[in-house]
Parts: sequence; structure tokens; C-alpha cells
Amino acid sequence: MRPDTPQGAETVADVGEFNLIRRITESRPQPKSTLLGPGDDAAVVAASDGRVVASTDVLVEGVHFRFDWSSPEQVGRKAVAVNLADVAAMGAVPTAVLVGIACPSATAAEVVDELSKGMWHEATRARVGVVGGDLTESGNLVISITALGDLRGRAPVTRGGAMPGDVVAVAGQLGFSAAGLAVLGRGFRSPVSVVGAHRSPEPPYAAGPQAADAGATAMIDVSDGLLADLGHICAASNVAIDVRTDLIEVHQRLVDVASALGGDPRHWVLTGGEDHALAATFPDPAGVPPGWRTIGTVTRGTGVTVDGGPYAGPTGWQHWR
Amino acid sequence: MRPDTPQGAETVADVGEFNLIRRITESRPQPKSTLLGPGDDAAVVAASDGRVVASTDVLVEGVHFRFDWSSPEQVGRKAVAVNLADVAAMGAVPTAVLVGIACPSATAAEVVDELSKGMWHEATRARVGVVGGDLTESGNLVISITALGDLRGRAPVTRGGAMPGDVVAVAGQLGFSAAGLAVLGRGFRSPVSVVGAHRSPEPPYAAGPQAADAGATAMIDVSDGLLADLGHICAASNVAIDVRTDLIEVHQRLVDVASALGGDPRHWVLTGGEDHALAATFPDPAGVPPGWRTIGTVTRGTGVTVDGGPYAGPTGWQHWR
Repeated sequence: MRPDTPQGAETVADVGEFNLIRRITESRPQPKSTLLGPGDDAAVVAASDGRVVASTDVLVEGVHFRFDWSSPEQVGRKAVAVNLADVAAMGAVPTAVLVGIACPSATAAEVVDELSKGMWHEATRARVGVVGGDLTESGNLVISITALGDLRGRAPVTRGGAMPGDVVAVAGQLGFSAAGLAVLGRGFRSPVSVVGAHRSPEPPYAAGPQAADAGATAMIDVSDGLLADLGHICAASNVAIDVRTDLIEVHQRLVDVASALGGDPRHWVLTGGEDHALAATFPDPAGVPPGWRTIGTVTRGTGVTVDGGPYAGPTGWQHWR
Repeated sequence: MRPDTPQGAETVADVGEFNLIRRITESRPQPKSTLLGPGDDAAVVAASDGRVVASTDVLVEGVHFRFDWSSPEQVGRKAVAVNLADVAAMGAVPTAVLVGIACPSATAAEVVDELSKGMWHEATRARVGVVGGDLTESGNLVISITALGDLRGRAPVTRGGAMPGDVVAVAGQLGFSAAGLAVLGRGFRSPVSVVGAHRSPEPPYAAGPQAADAGATAMIDVSDGLLADLGHICAASNVAIDVRTDLIEVHQRLVDVASALGGDPRHWVLTGGEDHALAATFPDPAGVPPGWRTIGTVTRGTGVTVDGGPYAGPTGWQHWR
């Protein structure tokens, strides 16, 4: 599913590892947090409060993305976004990413250029540096991203601190990526609002530290689907969560797409992954910060319910299952 | 080249992503630098002086390792070692690694268990934590590792600080991995001293901070081969380096192996990669720390010479070349 390398196009083998690294890193501006950028054995990144937050993800062509559905530039943006969202979900401000790209030697060098352009695009949007990486040969295209972040004195917000009586709130879009996937799966390319959300989600990075400052007791990045990810909070916090559908806004765009394709927009919102919204629990309903929408409550017990009962339908995604 | 999954053996698909993550992370002891370990969106690692050193590598089955030559446990050790060596080469003390494993769904779960066991083995040897990771599906087996480190107040030692008049010194083994590769390539499995060095190099992590404390002006991890990596120092520092073969010790074991296979042991020492020795430059010959061996000098000019002249033969390794 890799775009065929056009006849005569320059391949990564033609350009060579060192030249390619040079051309995707040269003259890229770095933020102040990048104390030493690419080009040496390792990078040096500011970690102002004496701690660093770190998360890693691996994205595989044909599993996590398809080049017939997304351009290399969009894949690059997404690869960085999904990982920065994990850092934000701890309450940290993202500071840097490191990137590994493994690809066949016949890959067009332009694919790597475009992947890299997308990575820099999203990194710049989040004000972080691409501080290092590795470029190597592989049978299929695999992207690994590690994101770093700075808590700036905050306690990390884990999945394990939710308490009965807390409210549950979300920041960012839900269901758009799943709707986009459904559209692409039917062979369509629009509407752009949902297809674009699937190709290059834009997680609400600032909402993470904002939630931490507002006293969030638990927080998670919604990557597997809202109910599945709230389930992770329940398991880690030893609590139950009830989601109230009357509090969940289903965007008109999702209603329209669902109506055209015959899907259920609420199902996308509840179970669709990859939007990389943030979900968090707050002790005080009045303390839920601006931009966050309350969608449910934390109670004693285990597991996630919807309107007080079990939700019928698939609730997440595990690899190899 | 993946070991065939035995009939009836549990595959990663049988065990499932979350269970597999649980069983490779549970009850593993973490060092004090791991403030929050695996299991959440991101880990939190101590960065005592307000900076963090970070490096990432991708290792691909069939390109960087072969399971008919190395066991999964040995591959796991090597994957961590090569990356921690990059952190040490900045003068930093390694603190943590994050691990990504992408593999086919039919991979035996035991392969992932053994990879993980090797990673923990090397991490423990270096006193660092495996603090996070990702496990996903892929057509071929790809391992990504990100290592973090702490400079503890030191200035990072880059490749760019060597000055004419400095001496060049190395710490750790040279040529053993190349000799091991030659042995394996001929279908042999011994001697273990060289085959083991190829399968699981043991970089001299402590020598990195030691060199920094001794005033090293430039430092690099020898992964591409001694001459190639000294060439990177020359390019970054805008200097020339002359290596003196009368100062280079060729271990008797390498002489023996070369004699048996018909190779040139000095060629392995000068050009063999993957030993992950450290090479550094020091302003004062008397200040080269214990355990480091002086092998040459830094002069004005460009490029690396051997005994004053060009070295005949391949001097390194680039992917896709």
C-alpha cells in the first residue's frame, strides 16, 4: 500500500542515510527547550523541574495508516500528534519528539521528505522540537515516535486517581476520526472535517496541563475509544464510571455522515478511537475548566456504563485480537 | 528468519496486547530514577539537573539482527545496549529506556517474552529502568528503543569539540563484533568471545561520564566502525585525526580467529562496527582516564588517516548503500 515509486524518482537508497538525515533536519528551527538538536549521538532537552515525561508509539503501514487514504505528510503529522497527546494526558507540556523511520530501500525519498514535513508541522504546532531520530532499512514502513514533556512542577496526572463523586469530562473532538474511517472505508474522500480528523487528528495539547492545574484526579488520552479508555481509568482507579448520553454532544457533521452512510454517530463518539481527545476526572463539577465538557460521573464499583447500563457493541481495539 | 512458531505454541495474538504488556512489565524492579513506570499514558523519569539526554534507534529483523544467529534474549540485550551507548557517548549517565516492539500476530509470545527479558537484563546491568513502551502488529519484526540519560551537571560532550593537539582514545572492545559476524557468516558458532560480542555487545557505559569528567573535548559511540566514527568527529570538529596502528592493541583472540578464517584482524579493529566502544578526544595526554587507550592524535586538516596515510578498504556502513 506504499505509493509506487515513480519511474526514475530518487529513492532513499539513491540519497543515502546520512544525506537524507541532513536534508530532513537542516535549517529547521528548534524551540528554546532544545538545548542540543539532531546530529550527535543524542539530543539534550530542557527538563525544567528535574523530571521528564516520556512516551513512545510505533505506527506501521497497513496497520495504523494507509497511503491510499492518507498522504505521507498527513501520516507524519498523526504520528507526532498521537504521541504528544500521551504526554499532555499526564498534565505535561510537550517539549520534544524523537523519530525513527524504517522503510524499504526502494521507497521514494520524497515519501520520507513528506513524512518529515508532517512531523515538523505538528511539532511546530505544539511548539516542540524534533530533536533526534534514526533512519533505517526495513521490509515495510514503520514509524516510531518518542515524545518528551515537562510537568513544570505539577504532579503527573495518572489513570489511577479517580474517586467516587468525581465528574468525568472530555476536551477535544470525539467520533470524528471513526466517522472519517467509515467514509474512507466506503471509498469516499469527504467531508474533509471527518476525513481530515482521521488523517491528522489535532489533540488539544494545552487542555492537559490545564486539567492538571484544575485539580484533575485522573486523565487519559482517548486513543482506543472513549468507553475503552474510561475503562482503563476505572481499572487503574478501582472505580466505576457512568457516561450520560444526554450530556454528550453529537456534532451535526457526524449526524450527517452517519445518515449518509447508515451508521450510528453516537457509536462513533462512544467507541471510536484515534481522535486523541483527553478524558479526565475532576473532584468539583464547578472546577471543570473551560473547553472541557462534563459527560458523566465516577461512582463506586467497576467498569463503564452508559446511562446506568452496559453498552452494547464493541468498546475498543486491541492489536492481534 | 523468525524462529518458526512451534505447532500449538501461544502466539502474541493468543495472549493479546494488554496481557502481553502486563506480563513483560509486571514485578520488574525499577531504579529510583523511575518516578512513574509503565502502565500509564507516559512515564516520568528523574532528570536531576534540569536537562535530559535522549537518543533513539530502530532495529529490524534481517537488517540489524537474525534469529538464526542470535536468540531473542540476545537481540533484546543488544537493542538496549546500542542505545544506552549513545547516551553514554554524550557524557551522560543512562536513566531509562522506552521500547517499541512491532511483530506479526503469529509470532510466538515466547519471542516477545525473551526479547523483553534481554532488554531488562541489559537495562539492569546499566541500572536503568524500562519505563514504557508500545506493542503492535507489523509484517516484520521491528524494535525501537529510546534511551534517556542524565548529565548530572556536566556539559554534553558532542562530536564537535576536538582541537588540534588533542589525543584520541578509546574505551571498550574494538573488532570483536566484526570478528563474530565473520564467524557467524561462515556458519560457525564459536569462539564465544567474538560471537557473543556480536550478539550482545557490552558497551562501557561508565566510561562516558568518566571521559566527560576528564575534560574530553569530543566523544562518539563506535557503531559504524572506528575510522568512520572518528570521521564524524573530524567533520563536526573541522579537524583531522591520525590513528597510529602501533598504539592499537589487536587482541590475541582476534588474531586467532582471523588466522582460522583468513581475515585481517586489524581491519576488524579499524572498520568493524557494532562494538559500541567509545572514542573521545582529550586535550592532555596525561589526562586520559584509566581504562581509556590512546590511539592517535588530532591535527589541523580534514579526514582520518592511519599512520599518516589514507586507509585502504571500506570504512563504514550506511543503510541503503
